[in-house]
Amino acid sequence: MSNKKNKINSLPKSFKFTGLNIKILKAGIKSKFKEDIGLIIFDNLADISFVLTKSKTYAANIKWLKNIKKHGKIKILFVNSGNANAFTGKKGYDALRSIVLFLANKFNCEKKEVIISSTGVIGEQLPIQKILTAFSILKEEKIKIEQNWESFTKSIMTTDTFPKMYFKKSNIKKKSIKILGVAKGSGMIAPDMATMLAFIFIDAKIPKYYLDKIIKEVVDKSFNSITVDSDMSTNDMFCIISTKNVDCGKFKGYTDPALTRFKADLKEVAIELSKMIVVDGEGAKKLIEVNIEGAKNTKDAKKIAMSVANSPLVKTAMAGEDANWGRIIMAIGKTKVKIAQEKINLMIGRHQIVKNGEVIKNYKENNVNKYLKGNSIKILVDLGIGKYTSKVWTCDLTKKYIEINADYRS
Amino acid sequence: MSNKKNKINSLPKSFKFTGLNIKILKAGIKSKFKEDIGLIIFDNLADISFVLTKSKTYAANIKWLKNIKKHGKIKILFVNSGNANAFTGKKGYDALRSIVLFLANKFNCEKKEVIISSTGVIGEQLPIQKILTAFSILKEEKIKIEQNWESFTKSIMTTDTFPKMYFKKSNIKKKSIKILGVAKGSGMIAPDMATMLAFIFIDAKIPKYYLDKIIKEVVDKSFNSITVDSDMSTNDMFCIISTKNVDCGKFKGYTDPALTRFKADLKEVAIELSKMIVVDGEGAKKLIEVNIEGAKNTKDAKKIAMSVANSPLVKTAMAGEDANWGRIIMAIGKTKVKIAQEKINLMIGRHQIVKNGEVIKNYKENNVNKYLKGNSIKILVDLGIGKYTSKVWTCDLTKKYIEINADYRS
Repeated sequence: MSNKKNKINSLPKSFKFTGLNIKILKAGIKSKFKEDIGLIIFDNLADISFVLTKSKTYAANIKWLKNIKKHGKIKILFVNSGNANAFTGKKGYDALRSIVLFLANKFNCEKKEVIISSTGVIGEQLPIQKILTAFSILKEEKIKIEQNWESFTKSIMTTDTFPKMYFKKSNIKKKSIKILGVAKGSGMIAPDMATMLAFIFIDAKIPKYYLDKIIKEVVDKSFNSITVDSDMSTNDMFCIISTKNVDCGKFKGYTDPALTRFKADLKEVAIELSKMIVVDGEGAKKLIEVNIEGAKNTKDAKKIAMSVANSPLVKTAMAGEDANWGRIIMAIGKTKVKIAQEKINLMIGRHQIVKNGEVIKNYKENNVNKYLKGNSIKILVDLGIGKYTSKVWTCDLTKKYIEINADYRS
Repeated sequence: MSNKKNKINSLPKSFKFTGLNIKILKAGIKSKFKEDIGLIIFDNLADISFVLTKSKTYAANIKWLKNIKKHGKIKILFVNSGNANAFTGKKGYDALRSIVLFLANKFNCEKKEVIISSTGVIGEQLPIQKILTAFSILKEEKIKIEQNWESFTKSIMTTDTFPKMYFKKSNIKKKSIKILGVAKGSGMIAPDMATMLAFIFIDAKIPKYYLDKIIKEVVDKSFNSITVDSDMSTNDMFCIISTKNVDCGKFKGYTDPALTRFKADLKEVAIELSKMIVVDGEGAKKLIEVNIEGAKNTKDAKKIAMSVANSPLVKTAMAGEDANWGRIIMAIGKTKVKIAQEKINLMIGRHQIVKNGEVIKNYKENNVNKYLKGNSIKILVDLGIGKYTSKVWTCDLTKKYIEINADYRS
């Protein structure tokens, strides 16, 4: 997409997130010698909540995170790209432990305060010696205070074509709050995907229990609404980290209205990152928003939305800018959700196509074809049998996707 | 695939299937003026068993077939390509009824003895006047006895690149039995697909009850093992039709050993047709067989087999002839089936890659890459936790797939 880079919400000049430092390393994990390790070092222990992949062949770092999940504190965030450290057995886990050990010693924290994130090729051993060698820089110099967020975001990229970052100023009780999200991920194609990593940093001091609650609400409407949910990769993770630098006082519980705007803003950051991931779908040219309305319940609505968004036949039709709307109908029909064909309404953009289960009389396909030439497509299906809705995002499926994935490692 | 056409099991010279005639028409349903209606007229009422798509947006003909399913007799098989008559509401069903009415009158049978099969674009009204005009040929001339099976098979094609036919001579109690299968279908790409139609004709006189039983056994190991099952299109159907021309006497029930060879042969015909459909997968260059062994039960085995076979990342790696086996591990992990990572063994062709959850010591990737240059790939995963197995087929995912599907209607 020609305007992909424009999607980056650039940071305000001289932006600084108080209470943390960033360090980028080149360890040679990626085949080309690029930035491949991003470290974030927190001045004080920060709070962290995370959701992890449901994959049964989860990676070494997921195993580690499952073990330390209860602790909920973070001193160091380590992210490497180029190697997923997945399906690497005991040796892979030992490699992870030596990273943890080194960083805990270096930065004087407990091991369970070192959060590890990995993304890249599955099944290859992590080149641990290269990583430890790269760490020697940390030993020698005093770490400079630097905050190059774009470098950090680039260091965690794999097949991403642009770094993904979104900043939103929010407030709680008139105190200004920073919400900064960074993410990596592309290859958004049903139902498999490349690893998705997303980190949202906030500075508000709110109870850790709220973070645990909000992350679940947010993930459902964002990263789990981009054809990611039931089929996460071996290494997927999303976390919210709070430096607790801005004291917001006490709250009257999780539903305190003082938190309303902050929650909405945090959700916005997650949704915008999600859409960036979709827009960067391997070879994608179009962002497709699928809206299902009039369902009997939310679960049904989402199942059908995902079925449409995951359909290669729908996605290739969009790539071909062809109003072959019958494929949307096919995708609605293939789930196990009970529907009433004669109640279905379908719109693409502002163009009504189907009303009460039949194509409308004066349907002008050319108008829809014209609309499909744009790079942001909206599909709206009203099932007409209830009041529940779902909104998910996907991208079109182009030849470029095959090119990228057939040649990923070459 | 250069040898696709070789896959056709050509019929013996002067082959004739006693008890039926074939008529091919050009009604102009397809955009180009090609054969688009195939009719098979049975001399006497034949027995028929069928399985239909589970799609909730099923086509008009599926609605018809559901209504008449119990009758189990067939005088006329009507198949049209170019238009699925799906999501066409009352008007579409009326069009179907006028076809049924015409054919029942013309061939002097009950309406419920007219079997209708449609495949093609969804959501467009069937050009019923064109079809009735084409039928006028049937009125004027006395139908010539002809049996051009290849023409029939071509008349039901949509994006197929070759006609699919498989003949097997079998026997029951030393009586020679013919089993002839014809099918159409391509676009085998997870989890959507173009319509699949398959008709197997036999001449053995066996109880209709046996047909109903055998079709369920066969479909599971063939057409439902090619990433078709849970996501059938709006028009999918598979039927077994028996002309009952060869009297085989009485049987000692369905498990009578006299039926063993016949059942195996019928299954072979269904599997070979299934594989042809996969081989003709839109843009496919390779046939991929996925074998899962050592599962706790058959359902788990099939779920994992389908997950691997449906994975676009696995399929693109195969297209790229890249031994990126980590993607197979990813696809194993993403189902909800419980596994033990440390017990997994993986082979591609004769090459062992993973033993007890880790890549083997002397793993030579180049050997696997060489193997992947062939056009028939076998993947074997032993889960090591049980004794159940599953075998499914799929194809690789190439740029050509996108080309075909983005431009399908243009």
